[in-house]
Order: sequence, then structure tokens, then C-alpha cells
Amino acid sequence: MSEWTVYLSGEIHTDWREQIVNGAEARDLPITFFSPVTDHSASDDCGAAILGGEDNKFWYDHKGAKVNAIRTRTLIEQSDIVVVRFGDQYKQWNAAFDAGYAAALGKSLIILHDPALTHPLKEVDAAAQAVAETPDQVVRVLQYTTQGVLQR
Amino acid sequence: MSEWTVYLSGEIHTDWREQIVNGAEARDLPITFFSPVTDHSASDDCGAAILGGEDNKFWYDHKGAKVNAIRTRTLIEQSDIVVVRFGDQYKQWNAAFDAGYAAALGKSLIILHDPALTHPLKEVDAAAQAVAETPDQVVRVLQYTTQGVLQR
Amino acid sequence: MSEWTVYLSGEIHTDWREQIVNGAEARDLPITFFSPVTDHSASDDCGAAILGGEDNKFWYDHKGAKVNAIRTRTLIEQSDIVVVRFGDQYKQWNAAFDAGYAAALGKSLIILHDPALTHPLKEVDAAAQAVAETPDQVVRVLQYTTQGVLQR
Amino acid sequence: MSEWTVYLSGEIHTDWREQIVNGAEARDLPITFFSPVTDHSASDDCGAAILGGEDNKFWYDHKGAKVNAIRTRTLIEQSDIVVVRFGDQYKQWNAAFDAGYAAALGKSLIILHDPALTHPLKEVDAAAQAVAETPDQVVRVLQYTTQGVLQR
Amino acid sequence: MSEWTVYLSGEIHTDWREQIVNGAEARDLPITFFSPVTDHSASDDCGAAILGGEDNKFWYDHKGAKVNAIRTRTLIEQSDIVVVRFGDQYKQWNAAFDAGYAAALGKSLIILHDPALTHPLKEVDAAAQAVAETPDQVVRVLQYTTQGVLQR
Amino acid sequence: MSEWTVYLSGEIHTDWREQIVNGAEARDLPITFFSPVTDHSASDDCGAAILGGEDNKFWYDHKGAKVNAIRTRTLIEQSDIVVVRFGDQYKQWNAAFDAGYAAALGKSLIILHDPALTHPLKEVDAAAQAVAETPDQVVRVLQYTTQGVLQR
Amino acid sequence: MSEWTVYLSGEIHTDWREQIVNGAEARDLPITFFSPVTDHSASDDCGAAILGGEDNKFWYDHKGAKVNAIRTRTLIEQSDIVVVRFGDQYKQWNAAFDAGYAAALGKSLIILHDPALTHPLKEVDAAAQAVAETPDQVVRVLQYTTQGVLQR
Amino acid sequence: MSEWTVYLSGEIHTDWREQIVNGAEARDLPITFFSPVTDHSASDDCGAAILGGEDNKFWYDHKGAKVNAIRTRTLIEQSDIVVVRFGDQYKQWNAAFDAGYAAALGKSLIILHDPALTHPLKEVDAAAQAVAETPDQVVRVLQYTTQGVLQR
Repeated sequence: MSEWTVYLSGEIHTDWREQIVNGAEARDLPITFFSPVTDHSASDDCGAAILGGEDNKFWYDHKGAKVNAIRTRTLIEQSDIVVVRFGDQYKQWNAAFDAGYAAALGKSLIILHDPALTHPLKEVDAAAQAVAETPDQVVRVLQYTTQGVLQR
Repeated sequence: MSEWTVYLSGEIHTDWREQIVNGAEARDLPITFFSPVTDHSASDDCGAAILGGEDNKFWYDHKGAKVNAIRTRTLIEQSDIVVVRFGDQYKQWNAAFDAGYAAALGKSLIILHDPALTHPLKEVDAAAQAVAETPDQVVRVLQYTTQGVLQR
Repeated sequence: MSEWTVYLSGEIHTDWREQIVNGAEARDLPITFFSPVTDHSASDDCGAAILGGEDNKFWYDHKGAKVNAIRTRTLIEQSDIVVVRFGDQYKQWNAAFDAGYAAALGKSLIILHDPALTHPLKEVDAAAQAVAETPDQVVRVLQYTTQGVLQR
Repeated sequence: MSEWTVYLSGEIHTDWREQIVNGAEARDLPITFFSPVTDHSASDDCGAAILGGEDNKFWYDHKGAKVNAIRTRTLIEQSDIVVVRFGDQYKQWNAAFDAGYAAALGKSLIILHDPALTHPLKEVDAAAQAVAETPDQVVRVLQYTTQGVLQR
Repeated sequence: MSEWTVYLSGEIHTDWREQIVNGAEARDLPITFFSPVTDHSASDDCGAAILGGEDNKFWYDHKGAKVNAIRTRTLIEQSDIVVVRFGDQYKQWNAAFDAGYAAALGKSLIILHDPALTHPLKEVDAAAQAVAETPDQVVRVLQYTTQGVLQR
Repeated sequence: MSEWTVYLSGEIHTDWREQIVNGAEARDLPITFFSPVTDHSASDDCGAAILGGEDNKFWYDHKGAKVNAIRTRTLIEQSDIVVVRFGDQYKQWNAAFDAGYAAALGKSLIILHDPALTHPLKEVDAAAQAVAETPDQVVRVLQYTTQGVLQR
Repeated sequence: MSEWTVYLSGEIHTDWREQIVNGAEARDLPITFFSPVTDHSASDDCGAAILGGEDNKFWYDHKGAKVNAIRTRTLIEQSDIVVVRFGDQYKQWNAAFDAGYAAALGKSLIILHDPALTHPLKEVDAAAQAVAETPDQVVRVLQYTTQGVLQR
Repeated sequence: MSEWTVYLSGEIHTDWREQIVNGAEARDLPITFFSPVTDHSASDDCGAAILGGEDNKFWYDHKGAKVNAIRTRTLIEQSDIVVVRFGDQYKQWNAAFDAGYAAALGKSLIILHDPALTHPLKEVDAAAQAVAETPDQVVRVLQYTTQGVLQR
């Protein structure tokens, strides 16, 4: 049986990642999951905290974003499938950026969002192999994809 | 010794995959085999069953085909050799599509079909490293290729 | 303005290529069109006629298919968009092979076929950016894509 | 002298593209500019208007987004530099998607936005070679980059 | 109509290149031909003559071979089709090296040689799209490939 | 410590492969070695013996060469280093083809041959990272490269 | 959890590599570290010592540099992250070369140097995801990147 | 005849670029030359002058280096040959970085430097197709490479 790697990108304020990881474990799926750092303040501060503070907010953010990109880019490149979750708050441009990055690398994309976001996400959805509304749907797509088992 | 991965694409109504897998096991070949989902109704319904039904047949099929493509594309990309079997029924355009996809990725192609199909398959065969008529021939090509043993 | 290249693959027994090329000229689209050799007997015989006859039909076809592939592969690789037409006759596995080849190279695919073929073509359509039923629709997609003009 | 191609992605409700194109012309820069279709209703309707209407809004949008992607992806791939403009309205996930897509292809990115958007755009900015606040700055970066002339 | 580039590699002691170039001109084929430097002594001496002499024959040859490779590699990479001619004299390992190099880049290969060389060239021929015995056959393959005209 | 893969291409009539493999084992080098099938008659006959005989010698050879290429190409692509040995007999064009193929893929090349062959091999040597005269030298290069140990 | 590979390039006269490797071990980071051969005289002499002496200093160096490149290029290509250290002595052009090589391959770069070198290293730093002044900072970036743990 | 593109990287304080460009013009070589911006102060200030000043010297340099990289990377990628000149002053790490970047992209490298720099440049020279001491030698290599004419 093949081993799969799945990157979980996007929204960090709900437990959708846990739902997917738990669902996959419950079904014994042969998947290793990767994620960005989901601790919001660590993610914001990592550059300045490690490499030295910055008075200028732009550079403070810049340092952190680049350190995060080491993790993000490497793990997306190592993944077979990239799941990107869009929530109903915040700009979430990093999520859309990840989706575009993954699409250009030829990764299979699964986009997870509420139907209310269909219109503004149409370009992102159009690049995806599957558009889901719930984490459970994502788990079932992963189950079908990796095990060939369709849970109706 | 090297480890090999082989994807078995195409016709799903006879037991050719089992013959190849069993033949490889009997010879202890160092091969991991991959396949698409070969349960016809699961393959047709997976999109709508998981992600939501569709009245329009085009979109019903579309959703399913895209979910299947997550598995198909990923596993073809992970394979060293792609075997594509054409039977005597159905359009089998997905099999020819897989062959073209694999060829463009530089995979070694083995095409398996009855001599009666030689003329319509000539462009596909021309892209292959080997054209076989029986699963046993495929097994022997795999044995030679992976173990260096020629069973005459 | 950008210059575009479009490859017209597939069915060779109707005048769909002429309709598209004429429609593009009428609209002054900035497109160079490429095609395989559409003279059926030349396409079948080119290998043996030039490089020497073959008694064995398999090799007769093989030689021709490989010579045709020089043209086909090169022009697909040079194209921005690949249009693939499926008719209601013949196996047309070379058309599906071209579609898979183009998809793996990341080309934009437009598939042209009658709705009656939707189910057997679902995997091919799923890889496409557009699925059209008439040459006129293809021309209008090309017009919109290359000129940004939407003819409603 | 080298010839350059620059793709102008993102916000479509102000005249920033015209400012850049006019500024480049005034300086005689050796640049061909590409853009998505910036007519909002044409962009929304192109799929259904050409390929057939859809009752379901998701598929209506989907068809249009895929047709637009033919233009968008092709022109981004043909560009040396991709400029992405973020405005203060709308979700603009397609702009961030384009930025990620271009970054993965190794294109030089110039991001254009108001300083108020610095924090939510930090991951996008971190992938850029230049972050500008005004179209005039973009023109001057292009002038320096293509002509080697620094207008202080 | 498409423009083609063809690289003529291999044997330098007969006029096969001239025959192909003249035949292509006579048929008005849309082809630009590239060649290595075919002046044997210039090819041997170019490194030492320009960059400084070497007492050690290995380095004398090494310098020259590397300078020649600038031309050879660049032009092979720019070509659509690579024709490689093997004669009946000399080792001609550089010709076989060029064939392998072109094959790995996915170029279309046409191999030109006497039937007497079939057995030792079998691996090279197996990577080719066409195996010809005469320059005239090569010209006719190029005519068919680029113009779609089959001269029987 | 890193794990390395090394492909041993070329001459099959002396025991140079055994010398290198034994030398590597004696030094406990972290290397997996790959080779083509070195049984000459198996290598010649594999195509026809498995896939069906051919009266025409060209196609007999062709079938075999293509089956061998499945093994050869796959293992070269999986290797970090490709060692190519040229002996003093036979045409050995397949060895030079492999060297060109490996060079185009960016593999590190080590060429092994007698100084008498320096001139005809100059283009091949010029693409190599090391040119050795004895299997023992190759082992020592591999020891240095993989373990960082220089045996003077 | 993901496994990471990190290449440590550059200065060989201080113990910065040991500090990073030890720091990573102390934190139990899931990283395999690679390095060039850091024994200066072995690195200088490896070519001539193994493959034969050279009177001409250029070729003496050339042989050694190419043998070292087998190790260097292969390990950089296998790495997720490349750390390049610049000290205050010597030309260190090989360090900058490695940085450029890694950048072109899309590797994440971390540059480690004293602030005094900021101006001459500005082009190298501009290609990096992080610029550190101490080995401890590098360890903390690696800890954050691979474990998601921010040690403030 | 083929058209060539050559990028001239490195040292900016002597007239070596003019010598090469003039020499190429005098010989009517079919070459378009590209260069970085060689106005030292413009190159240093371009980021801050266009995009806004920075008190922190690191970010001042950083902004400029990134803007320069738009030009540098794009033109190196468009070039067939990259010539890199090292002088006897300054760190010149950007030159070595460009050489590594070009090498990883598979460009043909010509390195131009005084023999006194042979030892510290050995890794850079080892990646080159030619190592020259004078601009005139570079011109003659370009003449031979592009025209096939050896001026002894």
C-alpha cells in the first residue's frame, strides 16, 4: 500500500485540523499530516524573537514570514495533497497564496470552506480536485483516495 | 537491490491485475503495485456520494472523476513503470489518457492488449517500452527488469 | 498583445479544424494553429513509405506512429492551449493519449465532444479547463482568452 | 537590449494598471504588459455565456473561473515579472492565489498595496522582490530593472 | 506554420549534413539547422589555441572538449529534433553521448546509419523516433514532420 | 550519514563491477549499487524471448533494447553517481549513450578507462567529475565522496 | 512528524558546525545534517592523491575541486535547508557559489555571518529566508521550523 | 545561424565588459549581451531611493539587493552563456553567487580572472566550461562557439 503525505493549510482558529487527523486515525489511513505552525503569536514573533527585534513593523513581520516560509514551502513540496481551509474571518491571503503555490507545483488541492464563500473563492476552487464543506468530507475523500474505500 | 513501483492502469473487468500481482509474488519481485479504484460503482459515485449529489449528470461525473484523479495522478507520479491494459469493450479513454500522462512524465510504459487492437493503439504502443499480449508476459518483463532474470 | 499557439488534436473526419481556424481568422485572433497530419493514409503510411516497408503490420504501424509522434509531441510542447476533439466513431485512443500528454505538461486543455460522450470522457473532461460541444464555442473561448472579448 | 514581459494581477476597480502602462510608455520601457480580463461581468459570466448556462451558482462560477484560468496561467507563465495589486475591498483571494502561483514558478514578484495591509499580506510580501505603495514606484522599479536607470 | 530547429550531430567526414541541408532547402522546409564545429583540427585545438597550450595531452583535449560543449549543449537544448549520424570509422562516442543527452532532454531523435551497424547501435536506435539509412530519408522525414507532406 | 546510490554502466566482459562493489564493501561505504543486466545473451534476447520472436534482426534487437531501457533509465534516474567503464573492445555506444543521458540529468559522472582511450573519449571525459584508470581509484573516489575519508 | 535534511556549507576553521549539530541533538530535532569534507588538506589533495598527481597547480586544484563537487552538489540537492557560514577570513567564493547553487534549486537558505559583513553579503542575504549572527540562532530557527517550537 | 545571449556578471571597476562587447561587435558575433546595473551607487541605492529610505543599513541594502535580483536572475535565466569576472579587490561574493546560480540552471560558464586567483576560485572554475585570463580570450571563445571560427 502506498504512503501519503497531506499538508493542512489555512485557518488556525477552529479545530478542523484535529477533526481531520482524528478522522484519519480512526480509519487507519496511511497518511502523514503536515501543518504550518498554528500558534498565532509564535508564528507572528518567530523572526524577531530569534533573529533580533525590529522597530519597523514591516520588517518585524517580514522576518517572521520568511522563517515560517521555510517550514511552509518545504512541507508543501513534500506533500501529495494540500488541503486549504478558508474560514469566515480575516483576510487569509496566506491560505490563498499556499493554494496557488501548491497548484503551480501540480499538487492535488482540496479546498474546505462554507458555501457562503463560493463566489470569492471561485478561482481557488477551480484549481482544486475537490471542494468540501466539512472536515468529515475531507476525511472521506482521503479515505477513498488512499484506501479506495467509499463510505457512502 | 532496488525497489520498484508499478502502476496498473486500465481495464477493470477481468482479473489481469491479480494475475500480475500473483505472478510477481510467486517470483518474489521487489515491486509495490498501485492501482486506481477498480470498484466501478464506487469510482463513478465517489464525488457525489462524499461531496454532495448533483442532478446534472455532467457535474455528477465531473466530481467523481476529479476525486479519482487525486489517486490516479499521485500514484502514476510515484511509479517507475506504468502498465496500461486495453480490453475489447468500452471506450477506455481514461486508459489512453493515463498512458499519455505517464509518457509525458517520462515513465516506462508497458501496454497490454490483444493483437486485434494493434492498429487503433499504434500511437500508444509507439510510446511504450514493451507491448505485451498476456499478463504472464508482463510479469516476465518485470522479472527481467527488476531482477535481471530472463525466464525463456 | 500576446501571441498564442493552439494545437488541434483528435478526430480527422469532419471539418471542425477549419471551422475553428476560420472563426479565429474572422475575429482576427492572435493565434497560430498547429495540427497533426490529417491525411489519414499519409499518417498511416509515412513510416514505411519513407524508412522502408514492413511485412509485419505491427512494425508497419509502429514506424508510422513514431514518425507522427515527432510532429505531435513537438507541437504540443510548443502550444499554450490544446484542443482535443472526440467524434462518435473509432477508438480515438491517440486523441485521449494526446490529452493526457498535454495535461501532464500543464497545458490548458479544451475538450470538444457531443454530450452523448460525457460519461466515457469524464476523466478527460475533468482535466480540462473547458468542455465545448461546438467549434463555435471553442472559437469564442479562444476569443475571450486571447482578446478578452466576451461575445455573448 | 532585453525585452521584458510583465503581468499585472489583482485589483480591478481602480486605474493602477493604466498608470503603470502609461508610466512605462512615457519612459519608453522595453516591456510588454499582460493582464487578466478586467471587465468584471465578462469575467464572471464567460463560462456560462459561452459554454452554456448553469442553475447551480457553484458550477456557474466554476466554468467561468476555469476559462479565465486559461488566460491567467498562460500569461503568468510567459512573464518575467508579476505585479500583484491588493486594494482595500473584497476578498481578493485570486490575487493572492496568483502571487503563490507565480512564486512557485520562480517569477520575480512585485506586490503593490497600502501600508495598512502590511500585516495580513506579510506572507505574500515575504515572497516578493519588491513591495510598493504606489504605481509610480512600480514604474520606477521596472525602469531600473529593465533600463538600468535609477530615477531618484 | 511552425518553425523548427534541427541539430545535426555525429560523423564529420562525409557530406551528409550538406545533403540534408540542401534537400531541406530544395523543399523549402521551415527549418533552421545547427551543427557542431565540423573542422576537425579546429575542434581538437580550440581549447589550447585560445586559452593556452597544455603539455599534457589529457588536459589539451579536455580544454577543447569543454569549449566545444558550450556550442554543442546549447544548440541541442534549442533544437526540436536531433539527427545523429554514425559512420563506419572511429569510435564516435561523442555522437552516442549526444544521442543520450538529447534523449534525456526529451528531444525527438533520428538516427542515421548503415544497416551493418544495427546491432551495436540497438540501444541508441531504441531511443529514436526514426532510424534512417540515407540522408534523403532524413529529409523526407523532416518534410513530413514539418510540412505534413508525404513524398512516397 | 547520507545513503548513496551508484549506477555502474558500460563494459560487461571484465570483473570491474565486482572489484568496485567488493572494495566498497570492504570499506563499509554507504552505497547501493545498480547495474544493467550483464548477462550478454539474456540482454540480447530478452525482448524476443518474452514478447515474441522476430525474423527481422532489427526488430529482434529493438524489442530487447527497449526492455533493457526500462531497467537502465529507471536506475540511472535513481542514482546519485553514474560510473561508466569503457573497455578496449566493441563499439560500446550504449555506454556513451548512458553517459550522455546521465549528464543531461545532472548526475555526477565518473568515467573509467585506459589512458589509450583519452582522445576518442574526450567529450565524455569533459562531462565527468572524475576520470579514473582503475576500479580501485573509483572506490577511493566513492570513499572520499561518501565518507569524507581520503586514502592517500 | 516530518524528517528534515540540512546542509552546512562554508567556513571550515571554527566549530560552528559542531555547535549547530550539538544544539540540534540537545533539542532532539528530526534533522540529518550533511557537510562538505572539512579537512582542508584532504579537500585540497583528494583529486591528485586518488586520480594521479599534477605538476600544473591549476589542474591539481581542478581535479580536487571536481571530486569535492560530487559530494557537495549531491548533498545540496538532497537537502531541504542549506546553511551557509561566512567567516572573516579568506575569499570563501565556494561558500557564495554554494549559496547561489542552492538558491537556484529553490532550497531554503539560512546565511550565518557577523554584521560586519552585511554590505558585501547583501546579494547573498537577499536570497535567504533567514540571516543569523550566531549558531544558536540557526539552531533556534531549525527548532522552530522543524518542531514548531519557538524558544524566545 | 543561431542567435546567442551572454550575461556578463561580476567585477564592475574595469572596462572588461566593453572590451568583450566591442570585440564581439568587431567580429560581428550573433550575440546579445546582458549585464547587471554597473553604476555602483545606483545599484546600492535603488531599493531605498524608489521604495523608501531605511535607517537600518541591513534593510537599506536588502531592499536594493532584491530589486537588483529582479534584473540579475531574469537575465541569467535568459542567457545561454554566463561570463563571470573576478577582480583582485573586494569580496565579490555576488559574482560567486551568480556563478553558482548559473551552474545550477545548467548554463555554460566562462570564468575570467588572473592566475593569482586560481586557488581560491578552484570550485568556481571547476564548474566552468572555460577559464580565461583576458577579455580577448573570452571573445575568441565566443567567436568559436557561435561562429565556429577558430582564431589561432
